Amino acid sequence: MKHTEHSSRDWLPGISVDCVVFAFHENRLKYLTLKFLNSDVWSLAGGYVGIQESMNDAAKRVLNERTGLTDVFLEQFYCFGDYGRNLNARAEFEKIKNDIGSTTDDLDWLTSRFISMGYLAIVDYDKVNVSLGDVSDEFMWQDVSEFKHLFLDHNDIVGKALLKLRECLDTKLITFKLLPETFTMSEIQKIYEIILGTKIVRTNFQRKILSLNILERIEKKFSGGAHKAPYLYRLKK
Amino acid sequence: MKHTEHSSRDWLPGISVDCVVFAFHENRLKYLTLKFLNSDVWSLAGGYVGIQESMNDAAKRVLNERTGLTDVFLEQFYCFGDYGRNLNARAEFEKIKNDIGSTTDDLDWLTSRFISMGYLAIVDYDKVNVSLGDVSDEFMWQDVSEFKHLFLDHNDIVGKALLKLRECLDTKLITFKLLPETFTMSEIQKIYEIILGTKIVRTNFQRKILSLNILERIEKKFSGGAHKAPYLYRLKK
Repeated sequence: MKHTEHSSRDWLPGISVDCVVFAFHENRLKYLTLKFLNSDVWSLAGGYVGIQESMNDAAKRVLNERTGLTDVFLEQFYCFGDYGRNLNARAEFEKIKNDIGSTTDDLDWLTSRFISMGYLAIVDYDKVNVSLGDVSDEFMWQDVSEFKHLFLDHNDIVGKALLKLRECLDTKLITFKLLPETFTMSEIQKIYEIILGTKIVRTNFQRKILSLNILERIEKKFSGGAHKAPYLYRLKK
Repeated sequence: MKHTEHSSRDWLPGISVDCVVFAFHENRLKYLTLKFLNSDVWSLAGGYVGIQESMNDAAKRVLNERTGLTDVFLEQFYCFGDYGRNLNARAEFEKIKNDIGSTTDDLDWLTSRFISMGYLAIVDYDKVNVSLGDVSDEFMWQDVSEFKHLFLDHNDIVGKALLKLRECLDTKLITFKLLPETFTMSEIQKIYEIILGTKIVRTNFQRKILSLNILERIEKKFSGGAHKAPYLYRLKK
């Protein structure tokens, strides 16, 4: 696995990064999860910080290693520093240690206290090329509206990332980063509904979004029944 | 100093917290700075994280130790994790080491790489009772509109905290946390102007703030020339 390829002296002790990688796919908001080798333990895409690497660069590297992507939206959103956050790490790693590394040194490293910086990434589902690395044997795009138990406090990390999306909904226009270059009004509405966790009245929503004066309407989306085809929009330059 | 009273084994290596403590005083936005003993080196209020302490609790403790306050606005705003951020720490600490601790162990600890979590605090100037601790011999409320050279990357930390204030200006109503319970329209406007770094037209500003529907007007502020006394406002419950 990555941290045994290198010596643990290559990494800063006690600090990790975890990326919540969001993508909008088939009208669902999803995030990337990875399964540890020969186990049923799922986690976010995470890693350590090199001795001479900036923390933000570590997050970029981890995102690139897992998705193949560079130059995507990637921002710090919250630092998870509770003492108790990996108190059950030993039990979780005991389940999988035969596969990911068997020395006591490894286990001591893996189960020591880590403060983890949470990063929020937004990617284009179709451009992601997931690479499992040396410790995972499966990946899954997890729908945010369905609960899946994750490793350590990774469920809390996802929850906090969703809150951050909600907080930035209007100010940072994050929703539009989740969409392709052109999109329909109902696709935007769907993302808003997912992030806000509530249904929205269509006419009010359309009025509100258009009043932001950030969209331009282009042609109608091609479909069989042309008279019902919705308009496509894109962000103004 | 604090970290020699305890052994460095009491603290997590490589992680610190730095608090940008803002207060609004005499129509100026200021932040708290402390001067290292017998030196001209100024820094923010910072500290380390206890082995069994949550990072957020460490920030609360540091804020309480320096200001005497609890239950004030205190939030993470950015994590400073660049490799180079304390490359000149040794030079800076060499200047002051005779006073704050003279062993090589201390200097090795102080000058090792630290990733620092920045916290933004908002306090009531009149309620602060600054306690210098064991490493400082002076404090100052630094006006944000005047530049003062600070230790390491602490100027960047202050700059980023100001950006955060700007980002949250309308959404989190942080400005109102900077004000006493009742305030005049010109006091609110002053804070907006400082945080935005620009002059604002009075009538437009007043209309905008009132349209948020969050303020109630109470009585006029007492003054000698009663006919010119401004109205006082407070936040609605």
